Amino acid sequence: MTPKDPLIVFTPSGRRGRFPTGTAVLAAARALGVDIDSVCGGRGLCGRCQVRLSAGEFAKHGIVSRDANLTGINDVETRFDAKRGLGPGLRLSCQAEILGDVVIDVPPESQVHKQVVRKRAEVRAIELDPAIRLHYLEVERPDMHYPSGDLERVMKALEEQWGLRGLECDLRVLQILQRVLRDGDWKITVAVHRAQVLTTAWAGFHDSAYGIAVDVGSTTIAAHLCDLATGRVIASSGAMNPQIRFGEDLMSRVSYVMMHPGGAVELTAAVREAIDTLFKEVAQEAGVPKDDILNVTFVGNPIMHHLLLGIDPTELGGAPFALAANSGMTFWASEIGLSALNRNARAYVLPCIAGHVGADTAGVILSESPHLSDEIMLVVDVGTNAEIVLGNKQRLLACSSPTGPAFEGAQISCGQRAAPGAIERVRIDPQTLEPRYRVIGCDLWSDEDGFAAATKKTGVTGICGSGIIEVLAEMYLSGILSRDGTIDGAMAARSGRVIADGRTFSYLLREGEPRIAILQTDVRAIQLAKAALYAGARLLMDRLGVETVDRIVLAGAFGSHIDVKHAMILGMIPDCDLAKVGSAGNAAGTGAVIALLNQKARDDIARIVRGVEKVETAVEPRFQEHFVAAMGLPHSSAPFPHLAAAVRLPEAARNPGRNSERGARRRRQGN
Amino acid sequence: MTPKDPLIVFTPSGRRGRFPTGTAVLAAARALGVDIDSVCGGRGLCGRCQVRLSAGEFAKHGIVSRDANLTGINDVETRFDAKRGLGPGLRLSCQAEILGDVVIDVPPESQVHKQVVRKRAEVRAIELDPAIRLHYLEVERPDMHYPSGDLERVMKALEEQWGLRGLECDLRVLQILQRVLRDGDWKITVAVHRAQVLTTAWAGFHDSAYGIAVDVGSTTIAAHLCDLATGRVIASSGAMNPQIRFGEDLMSRVSYVMMHPGGAVELTAAVREAIDTLFKEVAQEAGVPKDDILNVTFVGNPIMHHLLLGIDPTELGGAPFALAANSGMTFWASEIGLSALNRNARAYVLPCIAGHVGADTAGVILSESPHLSDEIMLVVDVGTNAEIVLGNKQRLLACSSPTGPAFEGAQISCGQRAAPGAIERVRIDPQTLEPRYRVIGCDLWSDEDGFAAATKKTGVTGICGSGIIEVLAEMYLSGILSRDGTIDGAMAARSGRVIADGRTFSYLLREGEPRIAILQTDVRAIQLAKAALYAGARLLMDRLGVETVDRIVLAGAFGSHIDVKHAMILGMIPDCDLAKVGSAGNAAGTGAVIALLNQKARDDIARIVRGVEKVETAVEPRFQEHFVAAMGLPHSSAPFPHLAAAVRLPEAARNPGRNSERGARRRRQGN
Repeated sequence: MTPKDPLIVFTPSGRRGRFPTGTAVLAAARALGVDIDSVCGGRGLCGRCQVRLSAGEFAKHGIVSRDANLTGINDVETRFDAKRGLGPGLRLSCQAEILGDVVIDVPPESQVHKQVVRKRAEVRAIELDPAIRLHYLEVERPDMHYPSGDLERVMKALEEQWGLRGLECDLRVLQILQRVLRDGDWKITVAVHRAQVLTTAWAGFHDSAYGIAVDVGSTTIAAHLCDLATGRVIASSGAMNPQIRFGEDLMSRVSYVMMHPGGAVELTAAVREAIDTLFKEVAQEAGVPKDDILNVTFVGNPIMHHLLLGIDPTELGGAPFALAANSGMTFWASEIGLSALNRNARAYVLPCIAGHVGADTAGVILSESPHLSDEIMLVVDVGTNAEIVLGNKQRLLACSSPTGPAFEGAQISCGQRAAPGAIERVRIDPQTLEPRYRVIGCDLWSDEDGFAAATKKTGVTGICGSGIIEVLAEMYLSGILSRDGTIDGAMAARSGRVIADGRTFSYLLREGEPRIAILQTDVRAIQLAKAALYAGARLLMDRLGVETVDRIVLAGAFGSHIDVKHAMILGMIPDCDLAKVGSAGNAAGTGAVIALLNQKARDDIARIVRGVEKVETAVEPRFQEHFVAAMGLPHSSAPFPHLAAAVRLPEAARNPGRNSERGARRRRQGN
Repeated sequence: MTPKDPLIVFTPSGRRGRFPTGTAVLAAARALGVDIDSVCGGRGLCGRCQVRLSAGEFAKHGIVSRDANLTGINDVETRFDAKRGLGPGLRLSCQAEILGDVVIDVPPESQVHKQVVRKRAEVRAIELDPAIRLHYLEVERPDMHYPSGDLERVMKALEEQWGLRGLECDLRVLQILQRVLRDGDWKITVAVHRAQVLTTAWAGFHDSAYGIAVDVGSTTIAAHLCDLATGRVIASSGAMNPQIRFGEDLMSRVSYVMMHPGGAVELTAAVREAIDTLFKEVAQEAGVPKDDILNVTFVGNPIMHHLLLGIDPTELGGAPFALAANSGMTFWASEIGLSALNRNARAYVLPCIAGHVGADTAGVILSESPHLSDEIMLVVDVGTNAEIVLGNKQRLLACSSPTGPAFEGAQISCGQRAAPGAIERVRIDPQTLEPRYRVIGCDLWSDEDGFAAATKKTGVTGICGSGIIEVLAEMYLSGILSRDGTIDGAMAARSGRVIADGRTFSYLLREGEPRIAILQTDVRAIQLAKAALYAGARLLMDRLGVETVDRIVLAGAFGSHIDVKHAMILGMIPDCDLAKVGSAGNAAGTGAVIALLNQKARDDIARIVRGVEKVETAVEPRFQEHFVAAMGLPHSSAPFPHLAAAVRLPEAARNPGRNSERGARRRRQGN
């Protein structure tokens, strides 16, 4: 290039340089390190490299950018436009050549590392950088005079046309390669995994590659099918985890394995089959051929992780809760018996953190990024165990708290899973102590007109986790529940809904069939669960040396359904500015999506997980102390200033002073 | 160490150093880089590290080495001796500690990189350095306070105890790892492939690892089971290649594939099944459990190579004879359907060189090492195609010559495979023209007493390749065959064994049932085959720019059966000092053994094969010229001075002058 050569400026990067007249815009971009996507390598087939000329005078660049300074639309672009459509004003940068000074705008969708924007405002966009990339190749034909293998000529093309070298090739790809090369008349598209392995090949130009992110939960399995070119989730589907027939909760499944020879194999087969079925469904829904599904990522708790991988989870059933491995793993999807995708599809499982803190928590970390936060973040994934992560960019700690299944409606007399007909919202009038509620599947409150008709189909069948949280918090706010968790028999004088139940009392939430009441034992079950959750968080706060947290994220299906205010009233979570308490939905699943769309996230999470300080609640003496102290509402002793400022708490809670659980009991007895 | 510390000198390496009193001999050896083997890592379990104290005064080292300068036999050694036997004067170097100056002899069998001596004197010993190594580990127990995966603690032990880092682990190993660790009470032995992948694990100490080297020939498959600790072949077994039912020769099998959809799959399944059966046999013969077979190497011609790997060989059936791949490949044996070995066993296939020059030739190169030779070597593997390698350490060329199946007894009227009853040796009395012969399975010549009785069981059934070579050479030496390959009708006057056959003549080798005669057409078939072979060699000589070769090696079963003198009389091979013409037996199979026992040989052969100049005879115009000129015996024009000095050739051959084939014909007509 010489000072007289045309100047080209790329926006938004601002990169600039002079190139000889006739240089393709894409070539100039490559030379300047401007991020422009391409699958076809500049042959006008993929349309990934579309750019726009910005016309006008650009004082700051000192140039006048004219339409005439690019060559006109050529045959290749006309053909592409006819076939796939070229947006107004857009050009294929591999075809448009520089004739004079130009400013070229690279729209986000033409960047290789485009940002995939997420729905929630507070979380980072995902940089698109999938582990699988497609590369179109024009391969030399074999020549008897210079004999070389077809594969070696493919590798040569990968090096010369894409700068990729030292790749390996799956034997299964080699088995189809000769056919593909000849069917494509020596033009093929290959899929390359992490710039290391050639994992499949298609004849001719092929421009579709998909991946599936899977959250293997103990109750449900969710699969998200993503387009690896755009990063968009194009279909999601969920299914019950069929392992439920071997045991509702994780420990009963581990018990099944321990007591039945071959039990682990049964559980493994069940979950894999369900995943395969889910893959078929999600692909069918999106109209994606299975051969285009090239990558799959998994999150799951340690027991799901082990069972999915075909590892007997017995060791996770008892101390010292040893994981088989705590690193992320990459393998063929076929190695774990999955067949509803490309037969060379690669699978990646996020790393587990500790015996009770699994790849699902690793996914939550990827999604919520506490490791990038300046604020101290508390991230809680509530389930049968609550996985708790605390920290910021300096330091990250994690533990698991044995909350038990009460939050999921188990161990609660009228409890049930979150399903249509389940009570999920409750309000209690503090004067009349009369309740009103809403059920899943109906937008009306129970005291609104038409509620009976609207719920005729589902009925009102029980109360789910979020409903229990709310009813207890409301009972507490209205004085029915004392601070130590006793249903106050004195209230029976004020309302017929407080009913003696032998030596204890219950609160009648709903008359009729089924009758739904909150028993004293239900309150105790939730107190145990919430105290465990709080104690785990508190233990990590001790370790980190903080008294308060700046931000709380509730992850998981349950976390996204509960009202954070009610959760805090119950003292499930530490006191925090309510405006900074939010729910993240299925953050673990989002983590799987991130690992699918961004290969560096896999290296990141490996590094992060190694750095996480793992705390085992079972061997921490202070956990028991925190647990006992957390039995009261919201806590037996700790102040909740943010909560108290936002909600009118019963008198005793606002001024907890030095009250212990015993002190609270004494006060109650004194009443 | 200080100047006052005891001095230790190791022989034969001569390495020496001072170490504090109480240093174990093995530790001193490690520190000095002395090559001493160990699987157990110095725990007195494996006995691989045995050494001997050399007592006496060693003037050149300036020390007096006394028995008393080592600690006495300890409990560990006593236990090892009782269990596995410690040779007289031998010590476990991991147990014996230095008390004073000593000279320690490391016997060859205690060296990691011991030499495996081969039977033939002219070839290099193999340095034992298998791709699979066993390592005994003591693994940390899991600790709830510092949660980590079992795998990660195994990796830590590998790094700390063996200096191995960054390893991967097969998912299938992870599936058994927790059980193995607990069964072994945290002491396990792992197998590591090429210092990169953990491929299996056993509870406790495990000291047996085997591999199988396989030569997949079109006719026979041979398997050699090797002990990877000693490098010894402990059992060999062969079987017919069942693909024969789809076609006797390679091209008919390719035709079968081309004409039958799914044919390649059938042929692949057939050869894999046969190999699996062979593995079972050879393991049973040696009493080796299949789980201890951890590595397998393969050689084979390109078509066998492709079919074994599950690659359709159609492309090899016609120009440009494109290989799917010409690199060596490593994969799981299970990927090619082999099950009679450890389920994580790794397989390695040597690289192919060109469309007609396969992994078998790569094996021949590894075995015969022309790439290390100062002399110009010609290595010929004779089969339906002859693979020819020519060169020395500077330059190596290879080609394949289409000899056809005549050398294997096909296309010969009384020809047959080499089998008991086949004539393999022939002599003809130049005076009487009477023949005598020997058959396979009998050491007597046909004119010796007892021949009839000794061959009663097998009979005399036909003539095999080596017999044909000899009978033609003898016919030529005795004047029955003229230099241009015509059976001389004039000889009918001298002997009733030369018989008119219409317009041509034949030579009666054996009367009776079956009558065995050499027809004119038989001579022509062999002439075509030998001319092709010679022309291939000559073409490479042209390319290399040499008129003579220094050494000739005949490889393959056929090559090892024929008499080199007779082969040269026929002009199958160029003239050469007969003392420098030898046969290498199954050199391809030996190459597979070398690749099994020495991992670096795999890298070597990859590099060598890339550097080999591949010559395609089909597109070389000079090949046809050489072919035509090579029809005469031993050649129509080239002189054979070494041969002429060793053998009394018929007049015309000794002074070939400028005779062309046409000239020879003219002379004959003049007779």
